[in-house]
Amino acid sequence: MRRRSTLRLSPQDIEEGYALACQTVVESDITVTIPPQEKIERRLKTDKTAAKIALPFPYDPDIDQPLRKVFLQIEPPSLADNTDDLSRVQRELVRRTDLDSLTTGLGVIRSIARILRDANWEVTAVLEVPPAGGSAHLIALEPGDTTHSLWGAAVDIGTTTVTVYLVDLRSGEVKEIAADYNGQIARGEDVISRIIYASKGSGLQELSNLVTGTINRLVSHACRRQGIEPAQVYRLTVVGNSTMIHLLLGLPPEPIRLAPYITTTNFPPPVRAHEIGLSVNPQAAVDCLPGVASFMGADITAGVLSSELDQTDKLTLFMDIGTNGEMVLGTAEWLVSCACSAGPAFEGAGVEHGMRATMGAIEEVWVNGETCEPTYRVIGNEKPRGICGSGLISLLAELFITGIMDRAGNLKLDLGSPRLRQGAHGAEYVVAWGSETATGQDIVFTKVDIDNLLRAKAAVYAGFSVLVKSVGLTLDDVEQVLIGGSFGQYINVEKAIQIGLLPDLPWDRFKYLGNTAARGAYMALLSSDARQRVADIARRMTYVELCADNSFTEEFMAALFLPHTDINRFPSVRELVEQQAVAGEQHVGY
Amino acid sequence: MRRRSTLRLSPQDIEEGYALACQTVVESDITVTIPPQEKIERRLKTDKTAAKIALPFPYDPDIDQPLRKVFLQIEPPSLADNTDDLSRVQRELVRRTDLDSLTTGLGVIRSIARILRDANWEVTAVLEVPPAGGSAHLIALEPGDTTHSLWGAAVDIGTTTVTVYLVDLRSGEVKEIAADYNGQIARGEDVISRIIYASKGSGLQELSNLVTGTINRLVSHACRRQGIEPAQVYRLTVVGNSTMIHLLLGLPPEPIRLAPYITTTNFPPPVRAHEIGLSVNPQAAVDCLPGVASFMGADITAGVLSSELDQTDKLTLFMDIGTNGEMVLGTAEWLVSCACSAGPAFEGAGVEHGMRATMGAIEEVWVNGETCEPTYRVIGNEKPRGICGSGLISLLAELFITGIMDRAGNLKLDLGSPRLRQGAHGAEYVVAWGSETATGQDIVFTKVDIDNLLRAKAAVYAGFSVLVKSVGLTLDDVEQVLIGGSFGQYINVEKAIQIGLLPDLPWDRFKYLGNTAARGAYMALLSSDARQRVADIARRMTYVELCADNSFTEEFMAALFLPHTDINRFPSVRELVEQQAVAGEQHVGY
Repeated sequence: MRRRSTLRLSPQDIEEGYALACQTVVESDITVTIPPQEKIERRLKTDKTAAKIALPFPYDPDIDQPLRKVFLQIEPPSLADNTDDLSRVQRELVRRTDLDSLTTGLGVIRSIARILRDANWEVTAVLEVPPAGGSAHLIALEPGDTTHSLWGAAVDIGTTTVTVYLVDLRSGEVKEIAADYNGQIARGEDVISRIIYASKGSGLQELSNLVTGTINRLVSHACRRQGIEPAQVYRLTVVGNSTMIHLLLGLPPEPIRLAPYITTTNFPPPVRAHEIGLSVNPQAAVDCLPGVASFMGADITAGVLSSELDQTDKLTLFMDIGTNGEMVLGTAEWLVSCACSAGPAFEGAGVEHGMRATMGAIEEVWVNGETCEPTYRVIGNEKPRGICGSGLISLLAELFITGIMDRAGNLKLDLGSPRLRQGAHGAEYVVAWGSETATGQDIVFTKVDIDNLLRAKAAVYAGFSVLVKSVGLTLDDVEQVLIGGSFGQYINVEKAIQIGLLPDLPWDRFKYLGNTAARGAYMALLSSDARQRVADIARRMTYVELCADNSFTEEFMAALFLPHTDINRFPSVRELVEQQAVAGEQHVGY
Repeated sequence: MRRRSTLRLSPQDIEEGYALACQTVVESDITVTIPPQEKIERRLKTDKTAAKIALPFPYDPDIDQPLRKVFLQIEPPSLADNTDDLSRVQRELVRRTDLDSLTTGLGVIRSIARILRDANWEVTAVLEVPPAGGSAHLIALEPGDTTHSLWGAAVDIGTTTVTVYLVDLRSGEVKEIAADYNGQIARGEDVISRIIYASKGSGLQELSNLVTGTINRLVSHACRRQGIEPAQVYRLTVVGNSTMIHLLLGLPPEPIRLAPYITTTNFPPPVRAHEIGLSVNPQAAVDCLPGVASFMGADITAGVLSSELDQTDKLTLFMDIGTNGEMVLGTAEWLVSCACSAGPAFEGAGVEHGMRATMGAIEEVWVNGETCEPTYRVIGNEKPRGICGSGLISLLAELFITGIMDRAGNLKLDLGSPRLRQGAHGAEYVVAWGSETATGQDIVFTKVDIDNLLRAKAAVYAGFSVLVKSVGLTLDDVEQVLIGGSFGQYINVEKAIQIGLLPDLPWDRFKYLGNTAARGAYMALLSSDARQRVADIARRMTYVELCADNSFTEEFMAALFLPHTDINRFPSVRELVEQQAVAGEQHVGY
């Protein structure tokens, strides 16, 4: 089925045989044809350029790491010294290190007798040493001297994509990056549909298994490339939005979805890998970093860590825009945050010819104001199959700045261009003719699409406006805007300001940080100090619930125009539009 | 098959169709007949007299118990207060108690969202509070106010019998006692055969499942009688010899059996019930009390606790005699211990007509020195089927004191009584004629049986002799002898001294303590202080390895006579024998 979640079918669609899957009762055998732009290409992406990721700070495993390996040559037992196996290990550890006590669990003591004897009493102890002191925890014994090797992984569970960094904890380097679609995606594309799926029958267990399956596959793939076993991975830090973390841990997520939007816990206790079915070392600690609220998860606290917002003197706005837009405002002294539902438009969903940023997606568009003719760039230089988020922003900005569309988002059909026409869902702009597309169909941008995008950008703008106002400041006070998340890196700042998605600040105040969530997980994996910082961030961050805030609705309504009802908030855009009008080249009419 | 582990078959046996199972190749279908005295009667014994067990000390659950229940009325969440579920519980706990921090595990946080909402935010928190302070651990939330009910269980895993005390932890009272054969018994009757079984294929897992199966059945039975669910049982203390504890926890026991006899650990970490398949509350702590060595297990440290040997000024000898004899000597200041292999004779095994102390067992015998005619008492007043341990001791003492047997254990066949005759395995004494027995066969006591018993009693005597000598004392210095273990309570002190099993001390220095292991587990279940005492006992106790001790062999050889090669060590017995000789009534000949 063509994706038309917010659209009805046109008479032409019906004639061509399209039907709404959600409205169609299957009465006999049918053939379902999936149009190419809707297909999810399964991909297991491993990035050989992982080594390019710089160490986030100077790293000394003996100081920064909670994991520690100690090689032990243990005196075999005798009738004269019949100390038990575990105490022998303990005694030798105390002799060789500054540790004075040791705890361990059933998994380890079940294996210790065999390993000690098979390895002829020469073993390497794998320990977790709490940074604050206290008992070290023995999580494994390995035969022989394996102190040269110590591995961990940072895991970013996105609603769409799961990313694993395989990290050599001796050097601190990221040795492999592996990414793939989250296996849960076939059970719902956004968190809300996943939560609903989880609430029925064995849905929770199923979604939990699906995401652990994805992680296991990625870890196994990355390990194979490094020539190690997944059982050598002894520590995982995990980030994701609160729903993703709940599903990973098997926590029922329903209360996240329903007012007043409550998580089971924002500070999940560390668990052992075997408890949640992760195929690394069974005793590996799986440390899910803390979040703040149902819609302010560990992906954002880790992002703040990664952005160093928690250590800066500059008033900083941190944003992570996807289906939900999360924003954090603050300095080293204070942090406030909010989340708004932008809807899936920026991810290409709910838009007539929207698609993800994969091969065949139009990612950038330029429109000639005089002829109304577009030029576009397609990912992979293929024939276009649809338009991705950055392409949509680009298109919206171009149509507005050229005056082909007014500030309310109405296309000017009277400009006399064949690109502008009345379509099945109202006015539309033809981005690409069928003759030049992969599908043979025209790729169009409709009034419905425009309205969806306006709502999305208005939600984001209203979000940070309320945030800034809540602390008695204005957007002009913001000294830097840090953009995290995978979507952020494709946004063109100039065009994002033109449509009013980003505030009208000098461009040099904006900075793209890439996948801040994964990088934050990586930092917390490396260092106990960094791990402590995320906890501090989560504890210190005030969360503003926009649902409970009337000023959000006001800001949202006012932001539904291009760039905003009050164009004076966007002086650079006003100037540009005025210049264009004076030059007489444009179809400006506000 | 008749039990003849150390015997060959007589021509009569073979004629009657007996065969040695271990030597017989089955070539076609056969019918195996099990003689009545060999049958293990499956019994699930629940003792309604449980309430008779006195509280071992004044008990206040709020002070003594590491388990604590707190009823919480939690404010439901709102948009204005979107604190997560776990933090709400935590916050209310801090408000209502002196606890300041809380840890928990995956099992609890998976259930918390549902329970809080179903119970309308009124729940009872079940906590483990470490006696030394530190974080409390939340192990469960129960809907509503359940503070009036708090249950635990003390479990004694004997090689033969498993005993469960179900304890009301509010009052401290034992409400039920349930006992049954250890389900492992069909896989070997003693620890050595269990260890061998565990070392093959999935034997370890199988033995582990068998004993948890027995415990689960006993707990379930006891709970049913009290009208509660096993899931309401939140804490278990477990005692048993080191092999039993290894098998329960799934630790490979082979090194226990092979020199230098090493356990995986004498201080097992506490585990959660679900980790080892126990069907109580899945988060219940299963606390296996510590032992000292492979053959000095938690049953003995718990016994010492129960006997209060660790708190007495008197020089005390504590003994627990079964297949192994374990002995502890000491005072509040010091503890030394040793274990000797007595063999199964005292348990009725390896003896021609030996049997366990169940219905039909001859448990006491009196012999007329003049006529050589016996009088006996049978458990259950039935026709006799065999002789149990106390009956064997009694018989050995009577035959010796009456002079029917000499000090080397030789029966005097020339006394002219039909009771004394040459049997298939040498000289034998007929305890009961076939006409009066349940089997129709004569019940006899043979030279082979006598030699087995002499070896058993010699091992025990040599054990405590070496122990006393190792600290530079003599047996006369021993101020009290405390006898634990289920076998101990059936021993007649007078007769045990006569055969040289117990030292020749005034009778009032001996005290039977019953099942000291179970009672010790019960004490540790009630009180954190008592639990700490067992750990201190285990740490303080010196273990003397008799295998490594030449003086043990000397003492053992010297003790193979009745009562001892040096009869001056048994003045009361010497006097008795001399009196009898003077009276001319006896056939004394030493």
